[in-house]
Order: sequence, then C-alpha cells, then structure tokens
Amino acid sequence: MKELVFVGLGLNDEKGVSLNGLEETKTADYVFMELYTSLMPDFNRQRFEALCGKQVHVVSRRELEEENGAIILEAAKKGKTVFLVPGDPFIATTHVTLRIDAEKLRVKTRIIHGASIISAIISLSGLHNYKFGKTVTVPFPENFSETPYDVIAQNKKFGSHTLCLLDLKVVEKQFLSINQAVALLLEVEKKRKEDVITPDTAAVGIARAGSKRPTLKADFVKNLGAFDFGEPPYSLIFPGEMHFMEVEALIAFAGAPSDFRGLIR
Amino acid sequence: MKELVFVGLGLNDEKGVSLNGLEETKTADYVFMELYTSLMPDFNRQRFEALCGKQVHVVSRRELEEENGAIILEAAKKGKTVFLVPGDPFIATTHVTLRIDAEKLRVKTRIIHGASIISAIISLSGLHNYKFGKTVTVPFPENFSETPYDVIAQNKKFGSHTLCLLDLKVVEKQFLSINQAVALLLEVEKKRKEDVITPDTAAVGIARAGSKRPTLKADFVKNLGAFDFGEPPYSLIFPGEMHFMEVEALIAFAGAPSDFRGLIR
Repeated sequence: MKELVFVGLGLNDEKGVSLNGLEETKTADYVFMELYTSLMPDFNRQRFEALCGKQVHVVSRRELEEENGAIILEAAKKGKTVFLVPGDPFIATTHVTLRIDAEKLRVKTRIIHGASIISAIISLSGLHNYKFGKTVTVPFPENFSETPYDVIAQNKKFGSHTLCLLDLKVVEKQFLSINQAVALLLEVEKKRKEDVITPDTAAVGIARAGSKRPTLKADFVKNLGAFDFGEPPYSLIFPGEMHFMEVEALIAFAGAPSDFRGLIR
Repeated sequence: MKELVFVGLGLNDEKGVSLNGLEETKTADYVFMELYTSLMPDFNRQRFEALCGKQVHVVSRRELEEENGAIILEAAKKGKTVFLVPGDPFIATTHVTLRIDAEKLRVKTRIIHGASIISAIISLSGLHNYKFGKTVTVPFPENFSETPYDVIAQNKKFGSHTLCLLDLKVVEKQFLSINQAVALLLEVEKKRKEDVITPDTAAVGIARAGSKRPTLKADFVKNLGAFDFGEPPYSLIFPGEMHFMEVEALIAFAGAPSDFRGLIR
C-alpha cells in the first residue's frame, strides 16, 4: 500500500515511541528517520532497529530540505513508508512541506503522534498550560534578533507565561545554554529598558525535559547564572502572573526560593 | 521502592502509551488510572491490562478531587506506584496537586510523557506551532463565559492562532460540538461587535485528533455548520495571520476552500 506514515519518536530514547508507532514501523516496507531537528540524548539507532526489526535509513538535512525529501517520496510511491521524527512530527515546522508534497502526489499520509518537548516542559514545570502565550526560540548570538524579547513582553502584558526553546545544532553538538540565553535577553533589556527581563525577573531553566534525569531550577535571573544545569537540551520559561498552586509547584518541583510566594497574583 | 510515576497514556487507545510508559507499568507494585479528564475513544482497559500484565484500579473524580487521591498516596508510601493519565499527565491541571502532595510526603515523583491532544491538534492542522497564542476551553452553555472570545480577540490582535478545546464530560458522554461552540461565540459577537468571530471568519474544526480517523475541516464559520464531524472529542482553531505554507497545509489536510489563499498575510 502506497502511504507515508509520520511517526513521532517521542522524547529522549528509543523507547519514547508509542506502541502504535512501533507497530507501524514493524509493518513498513521502507523506514526513514531524521535526528537533527531535536536532540534525543539517549537514543541509539541500533537498539531501535532491534526493537522494530527493520533497517532504518537516517536522512540528512540536505536530503530533506535541499532535495525536498525526494528519497522518502520515491519510497512512498512504491510501498508503505514510515518516517520517524523526534517528538511529535510536526511541532518542528520542517516536515509540513513533505506532507503537502506527498498528498499532491496522491500518496496518503497519516500521523502517529509522540510526546512533544513542548508539553513535556509545561508538564514538568507544573505551570498551567492554558496560561502560556506564544512559544519562541532564542537564537544563537550570530542570528540573534529581538523577537524573543518582544514575545516575552507581549505575553507578560496579558499575564501569560512564555516558553523559550533554546537554539541548537544537533549534528554540530552546539547548544545555546540557559546562561547565554539570559545574558542575550538582558542585553536587549539594557537597550530597550522596558522592564521585561531584569536581574529580578523570575525564570525557570529546564534541561533534558523528557529524559530520566531532567533538571529544573526556578529562581530570579540574577541567581540562575550560578546554577549548573548539566547536559543539553535546554529551555527556559518566563512566568507571567502566577496562581498560588503554580508557585507551590515551582517550589516543590523546581527548587524555587520561598520568595517566589511574593509573586502570587 | 516508594515512588509515584505519572505515566501519560498518549492518545486514542491502549497503544498510545510509550514503550517506556509500558515498562514502568509492568514493574509497578500498584497501578492506578483515570479516564475522565480526556476521552480516549478506542481505549479498552482489559486490552491494556493484558499488555502490561497488571490489574489496574480506575480512580474516580471523587477519589481524586474530593479525597485528594489518598488511595494513590497510600499505595505510593508502600511501593512503586504508577498513575496512568490520558495524554501528557499534567496538561490537564488536575493532577499537579497530587504531585505536590506526594513530594511533601517525601514520595519521589517522576513523569513519563505521552502524546498530548495539544500538540496533536497543532500537528494535524499544519499550522505553525510558534504562532499559537494562549489555548482556551469553550465551556458548555450552562457555564459559559466570554473568556474564550476575549482570548481569541487578544491572540488575533498579535496575528496569533487560537486553539480552542471544547468542553466535555467523559463519564456522562457529553461533548460540546463544533457547531455549538461556534454558535456560542457568535452570540458574544452579537453583543460585543468587535469583529472577532463573524460568519466570514476562518476556522478549522478537528474531531478525534490522535485517532486513526481524525476529521479536519477548514472553512469560513458560516459554512462550517453544515459539516458533519462525526464522533467526539472536538476542538477548533481560529487562525490569526497565515503564512503561505499554512494556507497550503489547510487546503491539503483540512479541505479548506481555495478562497483561503486570500487570507495569506
């Protein structure tokens, strides 16, 4: 059967995939995988191949973005093709084009969802999902823009929390650290002076969300710099107005100082 | 070992859980589950029990919310306890208190994430995740408030999309339909006249996200009423400003009329 099934690998390791996702892979004629849009710290391809009993072709950024995934589309025109993607397959916007191209070629597409870094970070923090505004990525210094500052400012105006993903180059093993991200945002503050990110702003740093050993630390920006978050990937939350229960959650799960109780609104 | 592991069941059926989640369940001394915060349309407890080889105690809303999950905390003080929750465990805010209470009793807690309805809906639509503002739930008429209208208005002001979850009572099998939700929002528009939800507003209705047969339909509000979405659960997206690729995605995946190309900003 000609079809292209996008399967989310979920988080962290080869057992982040759902039972449905593994079954689809076991019954595929062709199996592709990309591992560059997100870091799965404990993922091992050989162990995954043993689990699904298939040989997996790892596609490069070039094959996907410059050659528009031609290798995957060719396979999908011949038989059941599974494309494995870290997290939930379309939370990174990269693969939407491939799905549109497949549908245009009359190849049916389906999605088997996986756990996403977005819901994992929100779940870990204990902050309320419905209070998060727009998500934003903080880019490396060489591509830096003031967009993250603008998004945080916009969200704060409505009391909303901001989830910041920190930029990464998985293949090159480069990861923007929580410290670096905070420093970049403080630089913008120096220029803009809108009181969005100051040394006294509350923030939550999260490392390795979805792994067996995530690290969370909530504190004021001025104290966060001294904290060792360990290995990547990293993310940051800037809370807006917090409910009593949200502050208690940050104290219980993220070691927030008790001064955070003064932030309850 | 005294610990409480929150395991996300993921979406739709008993195979929505990750391999990690199933392994944790297999090695637990006590297994609890709740099935009332989200609908998993094709979930079968007996089949799940066969998969994990454990007897599963389904806890009621009363046991969790009125009795503060005492039955789960008592078990966790004695041995490894797994609590299975639809989707990603803390996207519904209900269980955060239980986790705080466990930590206060010095019971260690961990989370095994699952696919969440939030990322599933965004993935299915092909709209860009970073362009979504705050998420909101549209309540049943008897609890209706103008909050959803306010959130959509606020998001639109910044060109952001709004994901609306539609209220549900799983045990009572009551589900707010896409039609009803749109009608309730049009009522608010009649009163407020802020041009937020009109018959000419673009919207995307989604039924059974995460199932093997999700239904999506993008259209103007005036045309959406005639569409049959089939079985629940339901959700709605009100897009803000759309990029070319987002409109193409809605045409390819959600049967949007080609007039949607006029909405590209």
